[in-house]
Amino acid sequence: MSAPVLAVSRRTRSTPFTPRVEALGVAGYTVYNHMLLATSFRGVEADYHHLKSHVQLWDVGCERQVEVQGPDAARLVQLMTVRDLSTVQIGQGVYAPLVDVDGGMVNDPVVLKLADDRFWLSVADSDVWLWAKGLASGLGLDAAVSEPDVWPLAIQGPKADDLMAAAFGDSIRGIRFFGFQPLTFKDHDFIVARSGWSKQGGFEIYVDRADLALDLWDFLWAAGQPFDVGPGCPNMIERIEGGLLSYGNDMTLENNPLECGLDRYCHLEGTFDSLGRDAVAKIRKQGIRRVVRGLRIEGDPLTPCVQPWTIHDGSSAAGQVTSAAWSPDFGCNVAFAMLNKGFWTPGQVVQVNTLDGERSAVVSELPFSKPEQERVQAQA
Amino acid sequence: MSAPVLAVSRRTRSTPFTPRVEALGVAGYTVYNHMLLATSFRGVEADYHHLKSHVQLWDVGCERQVEVQGPDAARLVQLMTVRDLSTVQIGQGVYAPLVDVDGGMVNDPVVLKLADDRFWLSVADSDVWLWAKGLASGLGLDAAVSEPDVWPLAIQGPKADDLMAAAFGDSIRGIRFFGFQPLTFKDHDFIVARSGWSKQGGFEIYVDRADLALDLWDFLWAAGQPFDVGPGCPNMIERIEGGLLSYGNDMTLENNPLECGLDRYCHLEGTFDSLGRDAVAKIRKQGIRRVVRGLRIEGDPLTPCVQPWTIHDGSSAAGQVTSAAWSPDFGCNVAFAMLNKGFWTPGQVVQVNTLDGERSAVVSELPFSKPEQERVQAQA
Repeated sequence: MSAPVLAVSRRTRSTPFTPRVEALGVAGYTVYNHMLLATSFRGVEADYHHLKSHVQLWDVGCERQVEVQGPDAARLVQLMTVRDLSTVQIGQGVYAPLVDVDGGMVNDPVVLKLADDRFWLSVADSDVWLWAKGLASGLGLDAAVSEPDVWPLAIQGPKADDLMAAAFGDSIRGIRFFGFQPLTFKDHDFIVARSGWSKQGGFEIYVDRADLALDLWDFLWAAGQPFDVGPGCPNMIERIEGGLLSYGNDMTLENNPLECGLDRYCHLEGTFDSLGRDAVAKIRKQGIRRVVRGLRIEGDPLTPCVQPWTIHDGSSAAGQVTSAAWSPDFGCNVAFAMLNKGFWTPGQVVQVNTLDGERSAVVSELPFSKPEQERVQAQA
Repeated sequence: MSAPVLAVSRRTRSTPFTPRVEALGVAGYTVYNHMLLATSFRGVEADYHHLKSHVQLWDVGCERQVEVQGPDAARLVQLMTVRDLSTVQIGQGVYAPLVDVDGGMVNDPVVLKLADDRFWLSVADSDVWLWAKGLASGLGLDAAVSEPDVWPLAIQGPKADDLMAAAFGDSIRGIRFFGFQPLTFKDHDFIVARSGWSKQGGFEIYVDRADLALDLWDFLWAAGQPFDVGPGCPNMIERIEGGLLSYGNDMTLENNPLECGLDRYCHLEGTFDSLGRDAVAKIRKQGIRRVVRGLRIEGDPLTPCVQPWTIHDGSSAAGQVTSAAWSPDFGCNVAFAMLNKGFWTPGQVVQVNTLDGERSAVVSELPFSKPEQERVQAQA
């Protein structure tokens, strides 16, 4: 039986780039924030090799912006996260775990400060705009919450700087990580940031003009020809190798940010108003009962993980695998696992109940230390 | 090029029924509330004919329950809707448009009153739990908001009563529309309601025990053999014929409930506390500028509508088509359209810019009056 196709409707929103994505042969889709997101073109493994060697254009329009604007905007955004945002400058983006009053993860966006009274939360897959609306209504805050028509376009890969410099000049190389600035194309100022959901480096352009979207894609595509530009998308193998957790896959509302290894973004000693800080501070004091780690799973490539796989040590439950993929560069299966206390020490050996039978696995810190092959490449 | 497959991961959650859905040859999927939802088995048109003649089992686990429980639960649920819930009895479900402070549609669930202090909102595709959480936190309400593990299983079609009576006895025939009661299977009391997202009649069982889900499916499947039971799912053709609007497709946050034809669920004269009532009352007073209607579109079957099609009358913009399908029983394409004032009179002729060129269409009330062929069948 062939795999079920994705039935598309208005509800699973297309983006202004969808015509190019389809013309370039998208092979798999997912739905993310009620919007189409490609998952592969030439196959996940072929896309992976290309991403790590060249440069790709990614339609990540599904990375929706929740805009919070008004006199109480800064207060509302701060309430939603346990990260202290008081020192964030205009033109700066910061990764910020959003947590509810019980300390559960609601989302993990990059927060962009556009002005003192205007923020974009560049969100993962949950309706943060509804949570922000509820809080604003409940607290009577003077802050408008909306999801403006902004569709990010990512340029990712080791040649991303070269492509962008060829397209827009060398000054683009000076943008710092998560910093953003205006980028003029066809007399319109877009926002461009050094960011993106890979560890290969690159940029995201926040495209807020649907009528210019295809022109911009085509301009970048042409500029990318000397650099072997290809179509791409967030890559399952590369993201696991790189330690990029996915909300909904590797963490959910059931998890607190400390379990997710996000300690350094939790400013629990601060005095700023934050809905979830007391709950997270209490969890830290009591000590967490599980934490996310990497696993290197032995043996041949595995049937994909579409529901968590249980982990044990021969007698006790040890946790669960939430994402897994065969890594050609590591020469083994790599995975994320939420491991119970007693099983999370790097080097520890556990057993995973995969769809291909039980496999041994070795616990690893995140991000994974690179295998010899990758270190040699990086030094070259 | 073949249509892109849906790439499944933990984030696009499977349900306890997924093994049966896949074994029965699901051909298309969508993602709804971050969960898999089948869109066709033997093809949308074959599924449609079967649904209107026999009975189907539908895995609608994606119809998530947002549970609101606690001393302030009734207050919180009432705040979220413009429908007066004060007369709703325990054991009763009611369709209730949820609107924000600006009168925009947030969702359109069935609200089930389980107890005076416990409600389930059986939601369409948006994270209502986040909105409810935000409101509860902001207002300091004593109401716990959660998404319990409940996966509805629908039995739909003209033979649904026969199947259910064969399985559970004739008393099941006495359940009134949107009423619900306990249903015992393997010593567990499930909730069963007369409801479901078709106009063919049927039931929904709120399955809250994953370990009994496949047993229940198999039991119903066996009981359904004399009635030609088949696998099914919400059917695009049948839902348009029946006038069932889909949140995200035919209405969004940009629409108010009056535009969506939901006037009779808007109790704007009440004195109950409702976040959005003032905004909706103001809109009613000013008069709406557009409204949802049916369209009969001439000519051959159309390429599917995945983004709205614009409508005009030769000179002026008249609105947009949001969903469309070929109806074998009506002998034409049927559609939902949001039509501007001046273009919404039944019988009026407009032009639709489809992917197959411009087509004439006739405006219709919703639900559509049945064509002669259907009336004869109904009288038989």
